[in-house]
Amino acid sequence: MTLWTEPTPKAALVARRQRLSRALADVPALIVAGRPRPRNYAANTYPFRAESHFLYLVGRQLDGAALLLDRGRATLFVEPPASDAALWHGEVPGFDAIRDDTGVDEVLPLDRLGDVVGARWPEVATLPANDEPTAAWQSRSSGREVRARSGAELTGQDATLADAMIALRLSHDEAALSQMRRAIEVTTLAHHAGARALGPGVREAAVLAAIDATFVAHGMAPAYGSIVSVHGEVLHNEAHHGVARDGDLLLVDAGAETAEGWASDVTRVYPVSGRFSATQRALYDVVLAANRAAIAKVAPGVRYRDVHVEAGRTIVRGLCDLGILRGEIDGLVERGAYTVFFPHGVGHLLGLDVHDMEDLGDRAGYAPGRARASRFGDAYLRLDRDLSPGMVVTIEPGFYQVPAILRDPTYTAAIERDLDRDALARFADVRGIRLEDDVLVTASGAEIMTRAIPIDAAAIEAWMRG
Amino acid sequence: MTLWTEPTPKAALVARRQRLSRALADVPALIVAGRPRPRNYAANTYPFRAESHFLYLVGRQLDGAALLLDRGRATLFVEPPASDAALWHGEVPGFDAIRDDTGVDEVLPLDRLGDVVGARWPEVATLPANDEPTAAWQSRSSGREVRARSGAELTGQDATLADAMIALRLSHDEAALSQMRRAIEVTTLAHHAGARALGPGVREAAVLAAIDATFVAHGMAPAYGSIVSVHGEVLHNEAHHGVARDGDLLLVDAGAETAEGWASDVTRVYPVSGRFSATQRALYDVVLAANRAAIAKVAPGVRYRDVHVEAGRTIVRGLCDLGILRGEIDGLVERGAYTVFFPHGVGHLLGLDVHDMEDLGDRAGYAPGRARASRFGDAYLRLDRDLSPGMVVTIEPGFYQVPAILRDPTYTAAIERDLDRDALARFADVRGIRLEDDVLVTASGAEIMTRAIPIDAAAIEAWMRG
Repeated sequence: MTLWTEPTPKAALVARRQRLSRALADVPALIVAGRPRPRNYAANTYPFRAESHFLYLVGRQLDGAALLLDRGRATLFVEPPASDAALWHGEVPGFDAIRDDTGVDEVLPLDRLGDVVGARWPEVATLPANDEPTAAWQSRSSGREVRARSGAELTGQDATLADAMIALRLSHDEAALSQMRRAIEVTTLAHHAGARALGPGVREAAVLAAIDATFVAHGMAPAYGSIVSVHGEVLHNEAHHGVARDGDLLLVDAGAETAEGWASDVTRVYPVSGRFSATQRALYDVVLAANRAAIAKVAPGVRYRDVHVEAGRTIVRGLCDLGILRGEIDGLVERGAYTVFFPHGVGHLLGLDVHDMEDLGDRAGYAPGRARASRFGDAYLRLDRDLSPGMVVTIEPGFYQVPAILRDPTYTAAIERDLDRDALARFADVRGIRLEDDVLVTASGAEIMTRAIPIDAAAIEAWMRG
Repeated sequence: MTLWTEPTPKAALVARRQRLSRALADVPALIVAGRPRPRNYAANTYPFRAESHFLYLVGRQLDGAALLLDRGRATLFVEPPASDAALWHGEVPGFDAIRDDTGVDEVLPLDRLGDVVGARWPEVATLPANDEPTAAWQSRSSGREVRARSGAELTGQDATLADAMIALRLSHDEAALSQMRRAIEVTTLAHHAGARALGPGVREAAVLAAIDATFVAHGMAPAYGSIVSVHGEVLHNEAHHGVARDGDLLLVDAGAETAEGWASDVTRVYPVSGRFSATQRALYDVVLAANRAAIAKVAPGVRYRDVHVEAGRTIVRGLCDLGILRGEIDGLVERGAYTVFFPHGVGHLLGLDVHDMEDLGDRAGYAPGRARASRFGDAYLRLDRDLSPGMVVTIEPGFYQVPAILRDPTYTAAIERDLDRDALARFADVRGIRLEDDVLVTASGAEIMTRAIPIDAAAIEAWMRG
């Protein structure tokens, strides 16, 4: 039997809409679901996935719908079913059924929106859709230009709406956490299926197939393009044609998304032979120490950038212990020694989006007044807020030998004197390791939501066998 | 081990471009690849799939690229890799490698297109992309409006280009057939995996997972949204939450697409218990007879509409034999008796698109001077050309008890006197059956490309066990 996930109860949806309404006071807001994206022709679309802001408030994948929140009243506008819909789609839910299911005050046909809003259009706040047809519809409806994917440049009441949504979505309610926990349960099964499918001679695609099948069997989808690669050092790897060889490490970064869109995001590294070599194990333990040290720092009031630096510091310390770096830890950290081997941020917000609310640019990830660092590596940090209860963040330090970094003085000059390249060469069987957990900020500290997925090297080896 | 598909050899790509160049004479043509579609935010995209016309001529999934064909010369314009691409994407192929791989005359950066075309822009033919950003780029480049997905309304040199592409793509070369045969091999494995996963209490999603996993393990993707449903009578069924029960039939309409985009399209019906009931078997054999009769008619020079009607006639005859219809066959066929139970076309073109070239509206499917029928059922026929060697078509008759049709006199009035509803009621354990093969028109007749997938009822039962 498969785990099947209950939809978010309407009480939770009602509560979210009420909180948003209170935050908006008398600013009316229109939240759109978006339309399916055509693949090779109009009728052959990718699987529909509604906009995250819409899913947060309505919880259902309603193609083309829009939610109007106006002084506490929630009106859902939907495309009425075609007269012959029952011929092709079976019995489709009527307006009453949608109202009962979502708890909105009223469901109306989409073409009634103009009548309902009337002369108040210029005041209506909206967030731009990811697809152009919906953005064009937002433009036509509102009489002002709404460009698809322009969420990083909002002004006026749209910025007010964005900030209100961010305040809500930064702190996950129980219903959200329940969805994310279920996504993580399925991700746990998926990683296990992938790990058991692995062995010498197995193609990356076969491991990915075992992972994807687990998502699909439980009614879920990949929250993002899964990375399944013996080249873990290629951070944006979309290919899966490689064949795993004895002695390789396979990096798996894959997370399920529930039918309602709630994400998980987990990375583990599996030795193809079933056993880490001594050198792999040594560097694995450095990354694991960084993961644990970073998580240990997660608590309300802590600045996330400091969590990032803590991970970097732990990596520097570990590399010094292995003789790859030498010198004084603080100085190495200050000069960015970790960015040479760990050239990305330690994590990001997680929620309905795997990079939660990235459609709004850095408005969600960066507290007001904070901005991206300029230094290579640190500049890729997607989150720099003070942590607070209810936030879910990923913690995902890594160690990579990226040829294009290690051979380029732009990145290595500041630490060349401290780097023992002969020592590094002894670890040639490690191309890339990343260990990523999903972590909930609690009132007193942190909860590792992904703790059911083994992470100690020995536990990984045992899991692959069983 | 998994079947892995060799890319289309460059000699085949060169030959296709030369044939198109000859057909176009001195009309220059710009064929675009398109861009990935954002899912919930800009960086989280659906898996990229280039435009089919581009894949036909270039054979590679080159995000954002465009091919200029001008008096026999093929120039491929590509976005040059970012200076730091090697950091994130590993070693990316350079322009020389792309030229060697695809056999084009030259590869240039995308921003050189304007220089190369110069003052000849108004003459350049192009086909509209499916995504708005690419269509906007086509508009900016050409100085005239190109709307996404407007391929049904082409005029001038764009129509000339469309007709030339259609003439080429209607007749598949060996390289194309080789890709499609490989897609069918993987589809065969996928249907078998799905059939073996089936049993009482199994969720549709679990069968879909087995099918999808087979596609992914072999480096392929679904060519369209798979239908895996115990409600085969719901023709556009996108849900997979149903649980298969003893006595149900499971309809599976699923086909793999190769990494280069070549499609397959196969429907089979599996008894959940492993055995068809007598009533299921009787109606299954009616649909199978229609499939066989329609395929027997496929040959060069035959009008496809006549293949459709042949399937309909066979269904009418079968329903008369079972006592569901009564009366004289010709009269029943003329009154459209089959459309009540078989309310869709018998098939369509198959190639790079599962409905091949549907981005061009009916221009590909309907011969000049022919148009859709007005009668319900027949109006959904997507193909009405005279068949010719090298065409691949699907043959997919069906029998469905669609409540919204059977209870509506709009559809049933013309045959109500001939319909024995008591007899029909005895077949209540059949909601929907469709049997679909992919058929190549040969010089002398037809080749069933999907013959490795069992279709006789007894063979299906045996396949489910083995």
